[in-house]
This record gives sequence, structure tokens and C-alpha cells, in this order.
Amino acid sequence: MSKLTDLPKRILIGRALRSDKLGETLLPKRIALPVFASDPLSSVAYAPGEVLLVLSVAGVSAYHFSPWIAVAVVVLMFTVVASYRQNVRAYPSGGGDYEVANTNLGPKAGLTVASALLVDYVLTVAVSISSGVENLGSAVPFVIEHKTLCAVGTIVLLTLMNLRGVKESGKLFAIPTYVFVAGVFLLIAWGAFRGLVLGDSMHAPTSDYEIHAEKTGLAGFALIFLLLRAFSSGCAALTGVEAISNGVPAFRKPKSKNAATTLLMMGTLAVTMFCGIIGLAMATDVKMAENPAKDLLHNGEPVGAAFTQDPVISQVAAAVFGDGSFLFVVLAAATALVLFLAANTAYNGFPLLGSILAQDRYLPRQLHTRGDRLAFSNGIVLLALAAAILVYIYGADSTKLIQLYIVGVFVSFTLSQIGMVRHWNRHLASEKDPAKRRHMIRSRAINTFGASFTGLVLVVVLVTKFTHGAWVALLGMVIFYVTMSAIRRHYDRVAEELATDEEPEDSARPSRVHSIVLVSKIHKPTLRALAYAKLMRSDRLEALSISVDPAETKALQAEWSERGIDVPLKILDSPYREITRPVIDYVKGLRRESPREVISVYIPEYVVGRWYEQLLHNQSALRLKGRLLFTPGVMVTSVPWQLDSSEAAKLRARKRAEWNPPGAVRRGPAPRPSRREKAGSEK
Amino acid sequence: MSKLTDLPKRILIGRALRSDKLGETLLPKRIALPVFASDPLSSVAYAPGEVLLVLSVAGVSAYHFSPWIAVAVVVLMFTVVASYRQNVRAYPSGGGDYEVANTNLGPKAGLTVASALLVDYVLTVAVSISSGVENLGSAVPFVIEHKTLCAVGTIVLLTLMNLRGVKESGKLFAIPTYVFVAGVFLLIAWGAFRGLVLGDSMHAPTSDYEIHAEKTGLAGFALIFLLLRAFSSGCAALTGVEAISNGVPAFRKPKSKNAATTLLMMGTLAVTMFCGIIGLAMATDVKMAENPAKDLLHNGEPVGAAFTQDPVISQVAAAVFGDGSFLFVVLAAATALVLFLAANTAYNGFPLLGSILAQDRYLPRQLHTRGDRLAFSNGIVLLALAAAILVYIYGADSTKLIQLYIVGVFVSFTLSQIGMVRHWNRHLASEKDPAKRRHMIRSRAINTFGASFTGLVLVVVLVTKFTHGAWVALLGMVIFYVTMSAIRRHYDRVAEELATDEEPEDSARPSRVHSIVLVSKIHKPTLRALAYAKLMRSDRLEALSISVDPAETKALQAEWSERGIDVPLKILDSPYREITRPVIDYVKGLRRESPREVISVYIPEYVVGRWYEQLLHNQSALRLKGRLLFTPGVMVTSVPWQLDSSEAAKLRARKRAEWNPPGAVRRGPAPRPSRREKAGSEK
Repeated sequence: MSKLTDLPKRILIGRALRSDKLGETLLPKRIALPVFASDPLSSVAYAPGEVLLVLSVAGVSAYHFSPWIAVAVVVLMFTVVASYRQNVRAYPSGGGDYEVANTNLGPKAGLTVASALLVDYVLTVAVSISSGVENLGSAVPFVIEHKTLCAVGTIVLLTLMNLRGVKESGKLFAIPTYVFVAGVFLLIAWGAFRGLVLGDSMHAPTSDYEIHAEKTGLAGFALIFLLLRAFSSGCAALTGVEAISNGVPAFRKPKSKNAATTLLMMGTLAVTMFCGIIGLAMATDVKMAENPAKDLLHNGEPVGAAFTQDPVISQVAAAVFGDGSFLFVVLAAATALVLFLAANTAYNGFPLLGSILAQDRYLPRQLHTRGDRLAFSNGIVLLALAAAILVYIYGADSTKLIQLYIVGVFVSFTLSQIGMVRHWNRHLASEKDPAKRRHMIRSRAINTFGASFTGLVLVVVLVTKFTHGAWVALLGMVIFYVTMSAIRRHYDRVAEELATDEEPEDSARPSRVHSIVLVSKIHKPTLRALAYAKLMRSDRLEALSISVDPAETKALQAEWSERGIDVPLKILDSPYREITRPVIDYVKGLRRESPREVISVYIPEYVVGRWYEQLLHNQSALRLKGRLLFTPGVMVTSVPWQLDSSEAAKLRARKRAEWNPPGAVRRGPAPRPSRREKAGSEK
Repeated sequence: MSKLTDLPKRILIGRALRSDKLGETLLPKRIALPVFASDPLSSVAYAPGEVLLVLSVAGVSAYHFSPWIAVAVVVLMFTVVASYRQNVRAYPSGGGDYEVANTNLGPKAGLTVASALLVDYVLTVAVSISSGVENLGSAVPFVIEHKTLCAVGTIVLLTLMNLRGVKESGKLFAIPTYVFVAGVFLLIAWGAFRGLVLGDSMHAPTSDYEIHAEKTGLAGFALIFLLLRAFSSGCAALTGVEAISNGVPAFRKPKSKNAATTLLMMGTLAVTMFCGIIGLAMATDVKMAENPAKDLLHNGEPVGAAFTQDPVISQVAAAVFGDGSFLFVVLAAATALVLFLAANTAYNGFPLLGSILAQDRYLPRQLHTRGDRLAFSNGIVLLALAAAILVYIYGADSTKLIQLYIVGVFVSFTLSQIGMVRHWNRHLASEKDPAKRRHMIRSRAINTFGASFTGLVLVVVLVTKFTHGAWVALLGMVIFYVTMSAIRRHYDRVAEELATDEEPEDSARPSRVHSIVLVSKIHKPTLRALAYAKLMRSDRLEALSISVDPAETKALQAEWSERGIDVPLKILDSPYREITRPVIDYVKGLRRESPREVISVYIPEYVVGRWYEQLLHNQSALRLKGRLLFTPGVMVTSVPWQLDSSEAAKLRARKRAEWNPPGAVRRGPAPRPSRREKAGSEK
């Protein structure tokens, strides 16, 4: 394909091949599930632990609230799943939360959701990588001993992979995700079998530890607050559920129905795994403390800073499979891998959302090019930097990072669901068919319940977690919001300035062109520029040379007449060896003499292949060009001369153009161009 | 002046005013002396100390060799002065060592001298600043306690001053230099008076210290080697002597004669000060050790690392004027100031030499613009970085840095003098007038002696100092030499590639122009681009739009026909929202169909005022342009639209253009343009 540069052939088969190359085939449900679910499913690796951890503040006795909290999380999960099933039906085009909020609630709500999502992508990377490192660390001690280093290293690795545009395939996602899901189910089943049927008593590594309750005998409001905090932490299990709603176009037909079914499958899996792990944690007496060094006691003594509190899933696996056993190691590795995959989804989502925001002029226009490598690169590097900074600041501690995480998720859940309610209201206003109306009323009820519930959770999260770190996430959202608003305002101002007036401006309508070819010496690029300029048949054509050295100028004039070049050569003197100023002054003078004349300046340019060669050429030309563009009534023409070394750069550029944009699998194929557009049309 | 944008007026009086503004008035000798002599005169602040320091290796008894070494330095100084008096007479245009070597010995010798000079400029900054900090530190303890910090801080300060283009005047140099010279002469006179007339016994702060000789009873070859090393160190007094030979055009008439006289004055002053300080140091029993912490003993004990060995000049001043007395402080301050001025001369010389090398294509072409701010900035920053790194590595220890210093100076001395011998030989071959011949033979004799002596010193310096640090300077020279050779080779290769063939290439001579105006939407910039393109009367004109969104494209087509724009609009489809690839493919297709047609692409561009606005605009256009320039047979025209905010940038650009290039005082006025060039000539 890369050798196929024949235009007609490309028009005939180019697109099809290209789509295929990108792996943009439609996804069956069995592949779509792992592609979209690595993020929400992986969160069961940390969410159960967070619940126990918060409860431990009130002592181990508070652990008996954990099933109730699990129930609340399950109810919330099904509420959110049910709500998003409405989204995918209403927006089969893959309108994500941003588009739903933007369309139904207006640009401010849309921008709020976008800011929340951008912050969320950063936190998905930070939390998933940190948790992945912790899970891997339960099997490989080296990793946990150099936690921050390993986490940042993983971020760097993922960044490089995404910058290079590693080719994706459904299998890449399917294998680790299914291994992980199978592992967790085997864990739950084997644990249940050993506990209930064999009657084994299984003990987690921390089963004989005690917890020093920071606050004992909590009751009334304080207890409720603690339970709400534990519930907020459990809500970490819901992150990533919304991803499918962006990816509907990637599904096989019937797209909406398949997406909705996949959503339900994912919710059921997540909930089962979440509850199973909580249940096993209770059965094996896992102890988790918020500050293990101080509050986790072994033989009455605090365990101290050297102690590593392994994730619940790994403690449970140690109890059920045996610490260090084959299955234990496999599950730890699969967990870490799924978490890294979850982080990788943010690498795809962040630049994609950026490109949507760029289309709406909240981000620089050039980002809107789909699959544009540079736009992707900028987004990826920004995401990786922000995540790495967070990981570094918080010492790759997933518990601390989770405090920041859930705010953004619930901001977008809530606004998206409110938007859906508006959506149904609007459609109900015009819909007459009673069957459809019934359907819509039902959907509206689900979304209303979803909006209320997620809104309530958002308030709970904000209240219980604000001082614990949620303010950082809010601050991040505000920064994104303000920046994007400013960019949009700038574009609006420019658009207003550029809008065409009704009456064309006749006052200084240009009537003639005066062409000037800049000449430093007579060589091929100059001759080409002269030849091209002559072809353009302007009203007046002259060559212009800046005299920085009288001897050189004399030689130039002599060669000019010797060659009989039929273009008059004008010499401008520049004792300071400046190039820019004399040309600008001359052009301004010409404009002043005849304001209706447009000046066209031809600059011969060398095209070189390597950046350091670029430093050696064209610098004066570039600077002159920069200044000329500020001068009204001037146009600047570059006449390139391709040096031999430019071949290398051409090859590089072609290679760059054939790069695979990451995230293609979950995005679905590009809209099929209609026949008219394909052929190119002429008015 | 900045408001004076009227072209005729500028042509009449602009240049004159501008020259005046730059302070480029001719220098009388009394101002020229301090302007050019701050570097060589300031070296008496460290050179005497270096002699004693080396001698101390053989114990205090070796100090009695110091007068002999002083004599050798004096002879060398007068030899060099006499030699350079020939240079300024032979090259009144201000040909420095580089040009003398280049013209007479060929480009390799020239490039060697240039590399040596570049290294030397870096070391002038590093040594002068370090020594200045040490001198200041003898009066202000804080400075010596934070030596490296203060030295790097001073470098940063000088760098910022030079980047901003602080306006220079002769007075700036004259006052500190004359205060310094007067202070040293007062010191010598008062010391002689007290010692010889009053019979006071004066004691330097280190007079009652002892020196632990590293090598006692040195004799024969070892002693000679040590004396040669001490002599090499004393040669530090000669650095900067060559500066006048670059600055002849800055002198009043008769330029050469005045420059030669100033050289002699400078040599006499330097030698007197050097010998006076050595004499006073002997009289006041100054002790200097190479490793004071270990080898300097007080009451039989090593003084340890906390001891600060003050410079000889400050110890002598303490003995003669009294430690901490008013005159002591004034002299310390003046010494430091003169040393900083000496460092500043390198800030002027480095970019100037760069611009000369750029003219000979050893450095990027754009540096050759005289007084170009960007070129200056690059040179200044490079110089400051290199000097700061050296200062940091060597802990701002002038003694260690001086080991690196003298190699480069003597490389250029020697090659320059050999070049002068060749110069006279060449002139003698054609000169018939016996009086002139006699004169030339005399000059040749002087230069021959100079070349032999400085060559001998170079060998001595290399042998005695190679392992002490001279290898670093040599390495620096090699790096400069190799880099500049590579740049020159690149330019030569390109020039060869671009050279016009005798026969014009008729095979694919372009015969028609096909113009394409890129259109994204209809607004003022687009309409302007269309209007300009129509003026150019190409053979075929069409507008081209890339369809990234079918709805937008439809709207564009509708508005196009509604407005009745009489240019056909072609739509290219781009499902991936790419801009570059479809345009490139289209242009390549056109070229393939009719290879003799040239494609002219018009790109409407926004001109904005702030760099962050630039990020929001033109990025796609820039990238497209970059790719189009690689496509043969294409020219690319930018049609700018100046947004309101671009006014700010225009003002900034104008302000930048009126910046004062540093070093103007010592460079003299620009060559006066002849009347013909001034008026601009047309062939």
C-alpha cells in the first residue's frame, strides 16, 4: 500500500484498504465487551479495598456495614447502566456525555462535562497505573519497593507505545480482560467452594492483624457520614461505564441494541466481581487501614512504615489460592495488565475528546483532524505529563489518588442524565405515536431516576471527599474550563472580525500587481523563481537584491547582464548587512506611491531534509517573510528548490502519514463518503 | 526617530541618525585606550599571583626567580606589542588575527585561529569573572563565601545586559579603567615611597605564613620546567593585546598610527603595573601556594580548607594602604569592575567573530547580518552557557581556569605573526621603492621575531600546562574546528548542487500556471486571497475546499453560488478530516497530467500578534505548506490577513529592529555606502 502512489488506483481502492489497515472493522459483542470494559472491570481491583479502608476508621466492627455498601453500589451500578442504555439508543452516532450535555443543556454544561472528562482521563491513567503497580507488587516485591519509579516508568512506556501508534486489535484487549474475568470468577467460585462446601477456614495475610480505630463508638451523623464516605469510595467501581456510549459506531448492527446488551453484560460482570471480592474479603478476614503504618497492629504493635498493604484482591487470592501459587501470580499479572489496559483507554479517549472539542473551537482548530499524528502526540504528551505529575506527588498511592477520581465521573454522569431527560421532553413534545411515547416516557423515567441518584452521589462525594483531595480535581476542571472558554472567545472574536461585510470594500480594491523576485545570487533556485514569476504575468516584474557587499553586488550585476536576463534588477543598499529592513521599507514605499497596487514577493527557498540543515538555510527568508506578512497589501510566494537531501524528509513525512492513530478499534470506521463527495464535485 | 516612517526622510537622514544613535563616533586615543585595554590591563589582577603560586611549588626560596620571570614577560609583551603594531599598519581595515591568518596562510590556519579565539572568548569570561569575584571577595566576605553563585550570577547579569542591548559609551569603559590604573599606580608609588623613603616595613596578610614546598631542592631540568611553567602563567598578562587589531576602524585619523600608539601605551601600562605588583609582593612578603589548604602553613599548621587565599593585588593593597581602608576597598571594587568589563568585551567579540565566520560560511549564513539581534542573542547565550559551565565545573577558581586560558591566545598570536611574515614577503616581491622596502623588511623582522617568540611560548605553554587543563581548551578548539568545517562543507555541497548549468534545462520548462486558492469558508481572508489570485492572471484559476463535514461543505457551496463568485469551486472529500494529504494528492495528480504546468497554491493566512494566538491559527496551513514545498513544480503563496491583534506584534518588531547591538563602540562606524548604492541602481 505504501508503494501505491498512483492516484486513480488510490481513489478506487485506497480508502477501503486504508480502513482495513486501521483495523476499523466492526466489533462483535464478545470483542466489544473487553475493548470497552477493561476500564470499569479493572476498577474492582481497587474499589472493594477502598470501602473496607474507609470503614476501618471506625474499627473492624464497622466492616459489617460493607455488604450494605456493596448493595448500594450495585443499585447505583444498575441505575447507571440502565440510564446509559437509554443514551446509546437515543444517540446511536456515539454521542458521548459531552455531546449529550452540549446538545440538550447548552454549551456551558457541555464544557463542564468536557472539563470533567479531561480531568477524569488524567486520573484514570494515574489511578489505574498506581493500582496496577500495587497489584503487580503483591507478586513481585521489587515493583512495590520502587513504586513511584515503576508507575512513572509504565506511564512513559504507554506514552511511547501510543506515540508510535502501535497497531491495535480486539485480541489485544480480549485476552487479558477475559483472563482477568475468568481469574476473578474462579477465585470467587473456588473460595465459595472451599468455604461453604469443604468448610476450609481461609486466612488472608492480614487476618490476624488488628485495627486501631481512629474513632471508636461512632454513632448518629458521624457514622452516617463515614458510611457515605465508604460508599463514595465504592463508587470508584463505576468509572468507565460511560465509555460504551462513545463507541456505538464500532458495534455490529443492530448497533444500539448490541451496545445496550454489552453495557448490561459489563454491569452484571462488574457487580458480581465487586460483591464476590467484598464477600471473600469478609470471609478471609482481610484488614485494611487508611494509615496502615500506624493503625494496623500486629501482636499489639503498629506495623510501621515498612509494611506494604496489599490490595484486597491479592490478599483474597493469597487466602484462596495460596500466597505465591501459580494461580495467585497469574491473577496478579492479569489484574495489573487489565489496569494498564484501562490506563491505555485514556490515551485513546483524551485526544479523541480533544478533537471533538477542537471542532467546537474550544481547543486549537488543528486538533480536529482525525487521526492527525501531531494532534494526537500533543494530547498524549499532555495527558502523560499530568498523570505522571499526580503519580509523583501522591507517591503512586492509589488510595490517595482515588479521592480525586470520582468527582469528575459523577459530574459527567449527572449532567449527561439531566441532558437525557431534556432530550426525551423535547421529543415527547412532538411525538404522536402512543407506543413510541410510552417508550419515551419509560426512558425518561429511567434517566430521571439516574440523574437524581447520580446527582445525589455527586453531592455525597463532594461533601465527603472535598478536603481529602476532591478539590484538586475540581481545580483541574476549573483550569480546563477557563482555558477552553478563553480559546473559544478568541475564535469567536476573530470570526466576527473576519465576517464578510454585506457590501464589498471598494475603496482600495486592488487593480494591479507589482511582482518582486528576491535575488541573492544567480543559481538554480533564483532562476526557477524568476521563471515562475514570469509565468504569472503580473503588471510589473522586477528582481530585487540587497547589497551587503559591494564586490558581490558588482559580480551579480555583471552576471545578470551577461546572461541577458530580461527582468530589471534593482539593488538596495544595506550597510548594516540587514536584509529585512530595506525590503520592508521598499515595499512600504511602493504601497504608499500606488495604494491600489498589490505587491507580490517571490522568495526562492531551499528545501532540505534534516532539521539542522534547516538551521543553515532560509533563516533570513523566514524572518523576512514573517515581517512581510505584517505589511498590508502584500502576498508572499515561496518558490521551493528541493535539495537532494530533501528526499529523506519526504520519505519520513510519508511514513508519518501512514501512522496508525491509537484508539481506532473502539472508535469504529469513518463515515462512508457519499458517491458525490468521493468523485469530487465542481460547481 | 521611531515615529519617522516616512521613506524619503529616512533615506535622507535615517542612516546618519542611526549611526549616531549607535554611538558609532570615532574614538580619540584617551577613550580608545580604556575601551580596548580593559582586557589586557585587568589581567595584572591575576597574572602576578599565578607566577608566585607556581614558584611556591619549590618553596619560598624560589620566589627570588620572580623578577627574572617578570623580565621575560616584559620582553614578550613588547615583542607582541611591536608585532601587532605591524598588524594595525598593514590591515587598517581592522583585519583581526582570523583575517590575517586566513588571507596569508589559507583557510585551515584561519579556521584554527578562529577556533582558538572562540575558545578564548569563553575563557576570558570565565577567568575574568572568577578573578573579579575573588577581588571583590577580598573586600566583601559574602562574595567569597558564595563564590560560584556570585560568578554565575554575574555571568547571568552580563548576559541579560547584552541581550537587552544596553547602550554603550566610551565613558562606561573609561571611568573604571582609569580608576583602576590610577589606583594601581598610586599603590606602587605609595608602596615605593613608604618602603624606600620612609623605610616602613610593610607586611602582607600572609607575610608570616610559611610555604610547604612540594618539591624541595629542585635543580636542573626540573627547575627549568618549573620556571617555564611560572613563565607560562605570567603570560596570562598578555591576553587581550590583540583586541586593538580588530578595532582600527573605530580610531580617529590617522587610524593606524593612533592604534599603534595606543597599543604601545597599553603595553607600557600593563608591563609597569605587572612589575610593580610583583615587586611589591616581594617587598611585603606575600605568600601564595598552589594548594593553600595543605601547603600554606600558619604557626607550623596547614591553614585548612576554610582559608581564602586573596589575590596578590589585594594582599599588596592591604599591606600598603591598610586592610579594609578606603583606598583598599576602592581598588578592590575598581579591580572587580575592570575584570567584569574585560568579560564584557568577550560578549561583544564573540558574536562579531561569529558574523565574520558566517560570511565565510563557517557558521549559519544568517549570523552575518551585522547587528542582527537574533544572531547576537544566539552567540551571547552560547558564550554565557559555555562560560557558566566552566565556572561551575572549576568552582570559579581563577587559578584553575587560567591553565586553560593561554593556549588559545598563543595559537592565534603565533599564526597571526606567521601570517604577517608571509604578508611582507608577498609585498616585498612586488615593491620597488627602496624606502618602502626598508620599512617592510624591518616590519618583517619584527613579525618574524614575534612569530618565533610566541611560537616558542606556545610550545612551552602546551608542554607545561597540557595535563593541568590546557587539553580542555584544545578539545574545545577541535570541537569548534570540526563543527565549522562541517558547516562549510555542507554549504559548499549545496552551492555545487545549485550552480547554474551552462545550458538552461529546456526539457520540462514550465509553460502554464494553474492557480489554486485554498478555501475553508467564505470570510475576508478568503475573499482577499481570491481577489489577489485573480489579479495574477494565471492560465487556470480554481478554488479548492477540503470537505471535512458534509453540512459545512454544503453551506459553503450554497454561499459560493449565492455570492456569484466567478471562480470554480472544487471540493475534495476527506473522511479522516485530513487537510494535507488530499491537497498533496490532488496537486501531484495535476502535475502528472500536465508536467509543464506549474501549480501555484494560495493560502489565506491570519496574522496574529501573540505567540499563543499563533498556536490557535494557521497550524494546518503551515503543515500543508511544509509538505507542498517538498512537491516539485509548486509555488506557495501566503495571502496574509492582519488581525487587529497583529498591531501589537508590529510594534514589538519595530522596537526589536531599533535595538542597540553591543560592541558598537569598539567596532567603529559601518562602511559609508557610495552614492550609487545609496540611490539604488537599476540595471
